[in-house]
Amino acid sequence: MIRESANVRGFAVPLDYTYRIQLPHRSGSLARVAGTIAEGEGLIGDVTTISVGRTASVREITLEVRDRDHAEKIVEMLNTLSGVEVLWARDRALLRHEGGKLAIESTRPVRTVQDMRDVYTPGVARACVAISEDPSLAGELTMIGRSVAICTNGTRVLGLGDIGPVASMPVMEGKAVFYHQLAKVSAMPILIDTKDPDEFIETVVRIAPTFGGIHLEDISAPECFEIETRLIEALDKPVMHDDVHGTAVVTLAAVLVACRHTGLTLENQVVGQIGLGAAGFGIAALMVDAGARRVLGSDPNPLSHERATAKGIELADMQTVMDEADIVVATTGRADLIDPAMVREGQVILALTNPYPEIDAEAAVNSGAAFAADGTSVNNVLGYPGIFRGALLSGAREINLPMKLAAAETIASLATGNELVPDALDSHVHEQVADAVREAAIESAVAHLDRAPMGL
Amino acid sequence: MIRESANVRGFAVPLDYTYRIQLPHRSGSLARVAGTIAEGEGLIGDVTTISVGRTASVREITLEVRDRDHAEKIVEMLNTLSGVEVLWARDRALLRHEGGKLAIESTRPVRTVQDMRDVYTPGVARACVAISEDPSLAGELTMIGRSVAICTNGTRVLGLGDIGPVASMPVMEGKAVFYHQLAKVSAMPILIDTKDPDEFIETVVRIAPTFGGIHLEDISAPECFEIETRLIEALDKPVMHDDVHGTAVVTLAAVLVACRHTGLTLENQVVGQIGLGAAGFGIAALMVDAGARRVLGSDPNPLSHERATAKGIELADMQTVMDEADIVVATTGRADLIDPAMVREGQVILALTNPYPEIDAEAAVNSGAAFAADGTSVNNVLGYPGIFRGALLSGAREINLPMKLAAAETIASLATGNELVPDALDSHVHEQVADAVREAAIESAVAHLDRAPMGL
Repeated sequence: MIRESANVRGFAVPLDYTYRIQLPHRSGSLARVAGTIAEGEGLIGDVTTISVGRTASVREITLEVRDRDHAEKIVEMLNTLSGVEVLWARDRALLRHEGGKLAIESTRPVRTVQDMRDVYTPGVARACVAISEDPSLAGELTMIGRSVAICTNGTRVLGLGDIGPVASMPVMEGKAVFYHQLAKVSAMPILIDTKDPDEFIETVVRIAPTFGGIHLEDISAPECFEIETRLIEALDKPVMHDDVHGTAVVTLAAVLVACRHTGLTLENQVVGQIGLGAAGFGIAALMVDAGARRVLGSDPNPLSHERATAKGIELADMQTVMDEADIVVATTGRADLIDPAMVREGQVILALTNPYPEIDAEAAVNSGAAFAADGTSVNNVLGYPGIFRGALLSGAREINLPMKLAAAETIASLATGNELVPDALDSHVHEQVADAVREAAIESAVAHLDRAPMGL
Repeated sequence: MIRESANVRGFAVPLDYTYRIQLPHRSGSLARVAGTIAEGEGLIGDVTTISVGRTASVREITLEVRDRDHAEKIVEMLNTLSGVEVLWARDRALLRHEGGKLAIESTRPVRTVQDMRDVYTPGVARACVAISEDPSLAGELTMIGRSVAICTNGTRVLGLGDIGPVASMPVMEGKAVFYHQLAKVSAMPILIDTKDPDEFIETVVRIAPTFGGIHLEDISAPECFEIETRLIEALDKPVMHDDVHGTAVVTLAAVLVACRHTGLTLENQVVGQIGLGAAGFGIAALMVDAGARRVLGSDPNPLSHERATAKGIELADMQTVMDEADIVVATTGRADLIDPAMVREGQVILALTNPYPEIDAEAAVNSGAAFAADGTSVNNVLGYPGIFRGALLSGAREINLPMKLAAAETIASLATGNELVPDALDSHVHEQVADAVREAAIESAVAHLDRAPMGL
């Protein structure tokens, strides 16, 4: 998870294939297979022994390949080797998705008649009556207070665009996996089959009693802004569009660390944001709120301009941004948009488009940037689990600016050595973020729970 | 779980309290405590030793009490004993509900950078693209095909009436607990904050892509009938209101077993249904479909009459039902509605209102009934997990009559000895039900999956 410019491109090729291969069980067989893979330009990753027999063994070998055709070509090459047979070759990510990634489970088994009396008829009626008499008991007697809905209509999924709600499910399940693993939050994907903002909003409002918080995900701009704003108004619980605010929090953390590395201070710098879509607008707006001296924003789409100006973002063209900004963040979706010749000496550059950034980090550094990184370094997983956990712990009625700033500062404070951000899989990081967010909610008077929901 | 008439009332008192008690650690202390509890008319259940010290021990004793006042009175009595202190006394069901009953968890941990590449960026994009190109892959690569939404607006919860969506959550979580434990189905409660059928329906339709099936629960009649009918039309996936059809399937199973015990055959008998609300109408309708010779129905509410007549249920008053029916089922919500003098020699009587039935089973048998039981014997948990599992396994587009009959017949076939129905916690029962439902879906041509969704 080191984020130095030199190895950043190592993560850019997005296709891993697993090959299950039967080969003669004698010395030299694996070397022959490895040689053929090298000849076919596959890059070997994990090798796992599945079985060893008297004359043959079976291994699973994971290769990084360019695309499916490349993967198939290597199958053909391997099958020409004497005694070698590729039993199957499959996209490793698809293998890992088989059966889906989430399960809804009971926290305690029901084994006996007494268990059944307690959690079902007749005992369950007592829990219902208790909540009916005092609705705040829902936080103690149900999962509501420790759960989040991940709501999407699938209109802007990764770099894939509008693929619809069902095809977006793997992303939503992935988000929920991290909620569980890193923040003990029960997060449920909710796929909403409408592109109409009014319908989307009314659907979320109607099902909102089920959840302690609403995480919006992968909704296209500009509808996402209206949807989020109106849901925040309508609901007395935390609502956050992760693509806007989660990305912004993690980007701010990265910028704070980059400032630390380069001796800059955000208050004295000009920040330039290239691209003012959901993520870009969120980043630029948080830079304004975090106290950057000036924030410039560029985007060819005029729909984004009024929103940016209203937030105190100065509109500019990309050349002006590159000329005037000390810290440049790009979220345009366009690979190689920034010519290395545009880079100024001493600039900090975060080019966040995945998998191919606006400018290669190494090229940026070679052109004089003081610090450069790409989108593999700004992982949303660092933000949302702790942010929502902190909001749920405190019973926050919203996720406000102090909570977002507390999250960003905490993430930044936990990056050590030459890390740009800390390890997203380190649960300690998420605990710290959650604690800071909870504190900020209490101090800014949006918390309304004296004690955390049970089970969180 | 024996359902003989003699002990049925043993389940009727619905309040268990757990007392945590400190008492002197010497012989005779527990006897003193037990004696005082007896004096206070508490009925002792489990006794668990929490700690034993040099001079004192701490135990948790569960008592069946009449109500909270009774529970408090026993606390006072115990506290007068020398050396004895009640540390706390709490409603046992509420204790067991603390923190809620469900958790949404990842099926596999994400530990390494390779794991992250597989299930999140960049691998997740491949799963999204695969589904986008072939939507049927959603059953393999997501949880959708093995998940069910338990949708309610909380307008008719248990015998409590319209307590609203949030207060109904403990029931929904309880239903989901059994889905997980007995059928490996991931079931998510969805609380829908509207009483308007149009709004309810459009909300469910919009979120339906998230789930493989829609389980409706605790929605008041007559709105529930319209909601279910229109959702079945609107959606190409199984939809079932459990209060209507789940109850009917389990009741039919019980009736089939009662027939077996008494030598009756449904085809030759007159069935009388007293009460034509959601459950009662469902039961009477399924009796018609299962081939009962005649089905009589009584209900004072004229709103229920047109629906009943359309289904082939003959309207009658309660006296006529009692006079003419060989098999009587009552679901009125009214304790002691049926005078034992109305019972005819040889009748089968299922009085299903909980916790106090329309007629005490023992009294019915004493008045000449060939067989009688109350609502503790007809547990919905026997039906819905296997029914939905079977529907999901086969990718059924609906839950049709052959599937419901297959479920009822399978449940009936698994009751042994003098059981009226088999043990609801026996997962073998649910497997058999699911298999029968799947088979019925295939034979009746509503199945559309060649193989089961992965992970189910």
